Amino acid sequence: MAHHEVPDIYNRLWTPQHEPVLAVSSGDTISFDVRDAGDGQLEDYLNGTPVPASDPARSYPLRGPVMVHCAEPGDVLEIEPLEFAPLGWGFTASRPGAGLLPEDFSEPFAYKWDLSTGPTTAFLDVATVPVRPFLGVLACTPATVDPLPVMPPGNFGGNMDIRDLVVGTRIFLPVSLPGARLMFGDPHAAQGDGEVCVTAIEAPMSGALKITLHKGRSIPSPQFQTAGPLRPGIEDQGYYATTGVGPDLHEAARNALRHMIEHMCFTYRIEPQEAYLLSSVIVDLKISEVVDTPNWIVSAYLPLSMMNL
Amino acid sequence: MAHHEVPDIYNRLWTPQHEPVLAVSSGDTISFDVRDAGDGQLEDYLNGTPVPASDPARSYPLRGPVMVHCAEPGDVLEIEPLEFAPLGWGFTASRPGAGLLPEDFSEPFAYKWDLSTGPTTAFLDVATVPVRPFLGVLACTPATVDPLPVMPPGNFGGNMDIRDLVVGTRIFLPVSLPGARLMFGDPHAAQGDGEVCVTAIEAPMSGALKITLHKGRSIPSPQFQTAGPLRPGIEDQGYYATTGVGPDLHEAARNALRHMIEHMCFTYRIEPQEAYLLSSVIVDLKISEVVDTPNWIVSAYLPLSMMNL
Repeated sequence: MAHHEVPDIYNRLWTPQHEPVLAVSSGDTISFDVRDAGDGQLEDYLNGTPVPASDPARSYPLRGPVMVHCAEPGDVLEIEPLEFAPLGWGFTASRPGAGLLPEDFSEPFAYKWDLSTGPTTAFLDVATVPVRPFLGVLACTPATVDPLPVMPPGNFGGNMDIRDLVVGTRIFLPVSLPGARLMFGDPHAAQGDGEVCVTAIEAPMSGALKITLHKGRSIPSPQFQTAGPLRPGIEDQGYYATTGVGPDLHEAARNALRHMIEHMCFTYRIEPQEAYLLSSVIVDLKISEVVDTPNWIVSAYLPLSMMNL
Repeated sequence: MAHHEVPDIYNRLWTPQHEPVLAVSSGDTISFDVRDAGDGQLEDYLNGTPVPASDPARSYPLRGPVMVHCAEPGDVLEIEPLEFAPLGWGFTASRPGAGLLPEDFSEPFAYKWDLSTGPTTAFLDVATVPVRPFLGVLACTPATVDPLPVMPPGNFGGNMDIRDLVVGTRIFLPVSLPGARLMFGDPHAAQGDGEVCVTAIEAPMSGALKITLHKGRSIPSPQFQTAGPLRPGIEDQGYYATTGVGPDLHEAARNALRHMIEHMCFTYRIEPQEAYLLSSVIVDLKISEVVDTPNWIVSAYLPLSMMNL
């Protein structure tokens, strides 16, 4: 059971061609720091000012590949986050053409968060958001000939953006190549289910992971086991929820979110762009029913304990 | 603030033509009993025996319409469930051609639950499920000329099957017709987000509701506010979650569920049909991310405290 520091090297594509940065054995732990998905380009952003253009070629700097001894295709690699610590700041931003409501929000909008303030961070004077960090991107490198961009996830994992992959959760990843070639990045300080505006609280972090190799059973896509409650300490005041109803889940999700944004603007006297960004960080999208043919319901849940009103 | 008993009359369509069964004022409470959505046709079912044919014309017996004085189109009717008590038994069933995985489950399958046992009910010797009752169908009658079937929900509400509409939740419904014409039924003793096999624990219940009329602001579809945690007392052991990844949310939900059924069959040594039914009652479908173009992720969450293993 050795501990390793991950070298300060970044890669930005999924490909078996990257030079390994480290080799570990099952049971080992690794520690690292990792830049945010925007590679620090918004570190000096001032809230309320125009959003500067950013260079997409710098997006998604990932750590790794980390080789795991004896890992073979068909194995399962378990990752257990041991520690995550944001490094002082983060941002949330919507970009034209991206997110769940690109037609509704055609202008870029950004918010910089102060993460030097302990276990919570403030959104304007409107909301107090618990910091609950995880890695947005985590995977064993897929078996691909052509390099793949980091943006879309796949059955191999990758840019999963699953908010429950926090410290204590056991994450199970399919192994597709000899040595597993684990890569990770895109640290998030908080996010709602859906990540609706296309970003979470994107925040550089330090962290540590435990790596365990399992042989003998394959999985078709990532799975995970949480250590306890999904939203500890924030449910006592309940949730306000809106619905979207219709024959297409995607459109139902869009309408549930639109109705939530209307509700937040009315109730908390904020602007739609602000509600869109805050929803991405704290609102959860649930599939309430997907069987009452032909209309499904997606509900958007706002945790009331986070709202200052 | 008067209290009313809802008369023992059932209706089975959404139409303004039904004769009102009761008239109430804002602030009044009503109590009732209501048959299950199958109208008692599976009350005598024995687990492990062939599923008898049922008469679909008897589906969805609803209480109402209840008229609310002064209610006008554009108002909001608030319903607060005060009490729900299942009446001793319930069933969960999959039907050919229905549910989220009709191709995978072409044979009918049913399970009858004993609800005379207090706050939990057993699924085989595999799971212990907390009873958490709510009404699957609840709405002010929509403004329709032609009668509408109960099955699909709409922006008016109806067959919402939202598992958090339990005692203590405040439910907000659009009013579409003078007098509101509230109808309700389809009592559920427990359900997961998604209701994947097409039924919850369908269980006749008695209940009581408080009715409050709000004027001055309209809502586009139902909304609700929960009183506290969504899954009280069952999160301490965490969740096991599977994922579905792809460009279509519906297919991603199907794959997340398929992977959960595989996991449950492997881990708890049950049959796929059993895992399908149990998933409908206790597994929650969440939209993890819907922005990492072009692939979205739906996750299926199994609460481990309910599993006996």
